[in-house]
Amino acid sequence: MKIFSNTHHHLHRGQQEMFRGRLVDCHEVPQRLDHVLAELARRPVGQLLKPPQHLNVDAALESVHTSRYLAFLATAWQEWVKLNPDNANRDALPSVWPLPGHHAFRMDKPPLNFAARLGQYAFDAGTPLMAGTWQAAREGAACAVAAAHALMSGESATVALTRPPGHHAGPAYMGGYCFLNNAAVAAQQLIEQGLQRVAVLDIDYHHGNGTQAIFDTRADVYTLSIHGDPQTEYPFFLGHADERGSDEGQGFNLNLPLPRGTEFEVWFAAMQKALQVISDYGPQALVVPLGLDTYEGDPISGFKLKSAHYLQIGQAIASLRLPTVFTLEGGYAVADFGINTVNVLEGFQTF
Amino acid sequence: MKIFSNTHHHLHRGQQEMFRGRLVDCHEVPQRLDHVLAELARRPVGQLLKPPQHLNVDAALESVHTSRYLAFLATAWQEWVKLNPDNANRDALPSVWPLPGHHAFRMDKPPLNFAARLGQYAFDAGTPLMAGTWQAAREGAACAVAAAHALMSGESATVALTRPPGHHAGPAYMGGYCFLNNAAVAAQQLIEQGLQRVAVLDIDYHHGNGTQAIFDTRADVYTLSIHGDPQTEYPFFLGHADERGSDEGQGFNLNLPLPRGTEFEVWFAAMQKALQVISDYGPQALVVPLGLDTYEGDPISGFKLKSAHYLQIGQAIASLRLPTVFTLEGGYAVADFGINTVNVLEGFQTF
Repeated sequence: MKIFSNTHHHLHRGQQEMFRGRLVDCHEVPQRLDHVLAELARRPVGQLLKPPQHLNVDAALESVHTSRYLAFLATAWQEWVKLNPDNANRDALPSVWPLPGHHAFRMDKPPLNFAARLGQYAFDAGTPLMAGTWQAAREGAACAVAAAHALMSGESATVALTRPPGHHAGPAYMGGYCFLNNAAVAAQQLIEQGLQRVAVLDIDYHHGNGTQAIFDTRADVYTLSIHGDPQTEYPFFLGHADERGSDEGQGFNLNLPLPRGTEFEVWFAAMQKALQVISDYGPQALVVPLGLDTYEGDPISGFKLKSAHYLQIGQAIASLRLPTVFTLEGGYAVADFGINTVNVLEGFQTF
Repeated sequence: MKIFSNTHHHLHRGQQEMFRGRLVDCHEVPQRLDHVLAELARRPVGQLLKPPQHLNVDAALESVHTSRYLAFLATAWQEWVKLNPDNANRDALPSVWPLPGHHAFRMDKPPLNFAARLGQYAFDAGTPLMAGTWQAAREGAACAVAAAHALMSGESATVALTRPPGHHAGPAYMGGYCFLNNAAVAAQQLIEQGLQRVAVLDIDYHHGNGTQAIFDTRADVYTLSIHGDPQTEYPFFLGHADERGSDEGQGFNLNLPLPRGTEFEVWFAAMQKALQVISDYGPQALVVPLGLDTYEGDPISGFKLKSAHYLQIGQAIASLRLPTVFTLEGGYAVADFGINTVNVLEGFQTF
């Protein structure tokens, strides 16, 4: 198992996020990934690597995000500081945004003010952007590209071990601690390298809204997500069971929302259903946006999975016998995050 | 001149707002209205009144806002505190919202979580909602209803002297310190009392996005706004010169955006143009969302008007010789706010 690790992840280190109406210390912290690396040192389930230098990361990003959005992200910090030199000491957070049905994106008159530009591209105020965000997120995308390429070279499983996470990032939006959609980048790279069908199985507590949106109209990437019901759980608005995809993609998205408080047995039954759907689809590879916030100890989520269950989950994913890319997503019970992450990978390896 | 004053306005008193990426003390403070009352005590340009008890404020609100939005506002504070008893000590601010083009409003599966509900109805994080917001805003709408009725009873000019302001509040959204659109309520009441044509001339620094949206498809209410260019100025996204209304309302909206830094002469030329358009339309009454943040001393705006200019502006409005309702909107140079407001009213009276 080749594990491509984001050595630049520390550059993204948010101070505070708007959480349930007030500013609190960020949940998505560098220590998360450090705990995974420490656990991997104890249980070396794979080979730790840096993504190669020669990858065309920009082209990979352009294939899942809009050029405007990427251009915004690449210069957002510089714009933020230019707005007010004092801003150099604080993260950028949106304070105003357009609402569906009331504000159209005027491509001919795009907002020039940074506050408006940020609000146009963000769906929450919980995703601080700082000086190192672009570099950290871009290196994470490089890990995803490398993980896809390694899979095409014959590896049975690879990992993009990175933060910030990615699955909430859509074609042209950030949010949910995510900027660039690493799972979408990996899936798209697999397609561009010649595969006809790829499945994405998102097992983060929160709906993979960005990934669903990116592949909404496509039949060659089947997106599935098991998550907290969006009527009550973040990121809300999208992720309902009847969203099956649009146009060419009709029938190639499956959401399995579950109520807050769901225990492992019910969760695992949903996963078995997802695995059957994937098997019926017959993909040539699998991408797993791997969130560990289904854990009972997670401070901001609501399922009841225990650490040992993650071994079982890894085994269940392996039972598909598909070349598999894992991308690291959410999980905020920081101390146990490493154990739970490596449990999935070890379960996969030992199937 | 009958001036209906909101005696409940102190109940709305925000602590902090998200402003350009950080939490700052609120700009829209109770002292604003107190300064107007103090200046009216020195220069009694009209008769201070409370709105009568018998008004059907709920029906008036239902005629410009959606029932869902009003039901949300009426119980928002109770929902916020139910979410977390600690919330009783802090204002509600949105932290997550839907984005146009990516998230549809699922009327069949509306979000149940308060955070999502708040984000669905708010376009910024600068508009804190607290225990007294609904009561204060509703009494403000009562002032607007009373001002419209008094005009229909033969007054030549009336005022809804209230805060929070209203012109940014749309059919189903709050933002820009606004919850209920008092100017729209007044205009709609004038129509319902039998007028065929009403003009709304918004002279706040910020585009009257809510009022424009409420009357977007209607020809019986002509909305005009002179404001900072939305490409660079709050509330952004809407307020461009080519937005002329939709469907039946095509041709019955006029935006006159001006660059930050505009001086009185250029501003007043735009106003003369607006007055000519109103005159050509031939309305039977006028509603003026009166913002005083065009003032050179305003801390968050960008025009260069001086206090004496507001006398001239009042005279220019009076030159239309139309029955006129004023609603109090923005203006954050608190100490001069009373003088500038009463200057407009005095200018109008002495024409």
